Amino acid sequence: MSVARITSAQNPRIKQAARLRDARHRRKQGRIIIDGLREIARAAAAGVRLTEVFLCEQRRGRLEASPEWPTIVGSGAALFELPDEVFSKVAFGQRDEGVAATAERPPRPLEALTLPPDPLVAILEDVEKPGNVGAVFRSADGAGLSAVVVAARNPDLFNPNAIRASLGTVFSLPAAEAAPDDALAWARRQGLHIVAARVDGAADYTQIDYRRPTALVLGSEAEGLSPLWRAADITAVRLPMRGTADSLNISAAAAVLFYEALRQRESGQAPPEAHR
Amino acid sequence: MSVARITSAQNPRIKQAARLRDARHRRKQGRIIIDGLREIARAAAAGVRLTEVFLCEQRRGRLEASPEWPTIVGSGAALFELPDEVFSKVAFGQRDEGVAATAERPPRPLEALTLPPDPLVAILEDVEKPGNVGAVFRSADGAGLSAVVVAARNPDLFNPNAIRASLGTVFSLPAAEAAPDDALAWARRQGLHIVAARVDGAADYTQIDYRRPTALVLGSEAEGLSPLWRAADITAVRLPMRGTADSLNISAAAAVLFYEALRQRESGQAPPEAHR
Repeated sequence: MSVARITSAQNPRIKQAARLRDARHRRKQGRIIIDGLREIARAAAAGVRLTEVFLCEQRRGRLEASPEWPTIVGSGAALFELPDEVFSKVAFGQRDEGVAATAERPPRPLEALTLPPDPLVAILEDVEKPGNVGAVFRSADGAGLSAVVVAARNPDLFNPNAIRASLGTVFSLPAAEAAPDDALAWARRQGLHIVAARVDGAADYTQIDYRRPTALVLGSEAEGLSPLWRAADITAVRLPMRGTADSLNISAAAAVLFYEALRQRESGQAPPEAHR
Repeated sequence: MSVARITSAQNPRIKQAARLRDARHRRKQGRIIIDGLREIARAAAAGVRLTEVFLCEQRRGRLEASPEWPTIVGSGAALFELPDEVFSKVAFGQRDEGVAATAERPPRPLEALTLPPDPLVAILEDVEKPGNVGAVFRSADGAGLSAVVVAARNPDLFNPNAIRASLGTVFSLPAAEAAPDDALAWARRQGLHIVAARVDGAADYTQIDYRRPTALVLGSEAEGLSPLWRAADITAVRLPMRGTADSLNISAAAAVLFYEALRQRESGQAPPEAHR
């Protein structure tokens, strides 16, 4: 294992890596940037090709003693050690763990997504905050979803904040990026029962039988789902709102839906009078 | 209605209000600061005494046309109009809506909390991120919880970020602040069935009968619950984790628990073999 030392913040590797905080540069370079040991190890374990790993020299001993270290060394990425002030240039606000990595942007086309029998899929339309996208992935991972589709005109699945909030599950969970209408057409081709969460949904979410092949669709924080998801073959569900606010946070709503589906699937129990 | 104009960022009112971003100054002044029209209106509607309302002059017309405006004027707070550069001093990172208010810090002692019959209460121990505290309040409001107790050595229920993430439901929902051991003693005195969420909980969370008077207890993001909640009279539950990550985000876990309790209470259905 060889670790090269970079001492100048003007080093081209440092400058190129720092630019990956910006979506435009991620597209241009075809690369992404990952913060955190667990997240980097999950990316490597999921087959993502790491290109560079940057270590803050003050943390190097602790990093090398971690259980994730062999995965990171074994990834074949070039390793670099940086003094704190250079590391902070790469790590931006994410300096806590003292490690960041660049990687080739993993392609995630819808066509490459293969589903198991009786799949349970989430589709997120135009969710704006990367932290929310990441939080939904973390809940989808927990509830054992088959896949997550990030649907937007310019999807940005591998935003560093999405990666972080997902704890790296954006890499391990089957996922795809697609335009919203392509995501809908795909869900129909897959024969999924499409269940869309809307504030004005006609059915209570607990009245649905999620044991069938199902796509759970959630919309943006501010606007909810677009009219695309009002088609006749789509079931609109609402979560009960018993208080003064009129909606849940998108990641809370997603977790409730995912775990109700899991509860039905594990218990074998559908609701008494399920909407079909 | 009279609106005074403040043009200097050195104005003492501005300086004192800006200091309320800091917990130490909130304690010292006995006041809090609230961002956002909906949040301010919810505080006023919940009986919180607003002292000052600061309006960004560029937004004043829009604010006065809002449905929340009469509540804000009716609160009796002193109204001030500020140019953008002075407003940004008060509003910090929260400039989007162009309105912020100071208020007397509402007292929230445990002793003042009165519960309805068959209460469903949440207790949060040492949750560190104000955004998570706020998100849990929003879900608690949605699921119709009776109250939320924020348990910590130095509880900070009215952190501006908690207020914001809660959409102001920290004001409308019955709530209390307490040391963790006081919160536990209180839950026992109230005769609540205490259900603690732990990664290593013996029972699956769906196997619990939440129709009884219940306290749902959640711990800190990094450490989970302290040993205090391992007592013999406390039921430890886990959420199934089917993927690679070992826990859910605290606000996702809270939403799943709250809505499972609501589902049981609304359907009248307890789990087939409920742990008692």
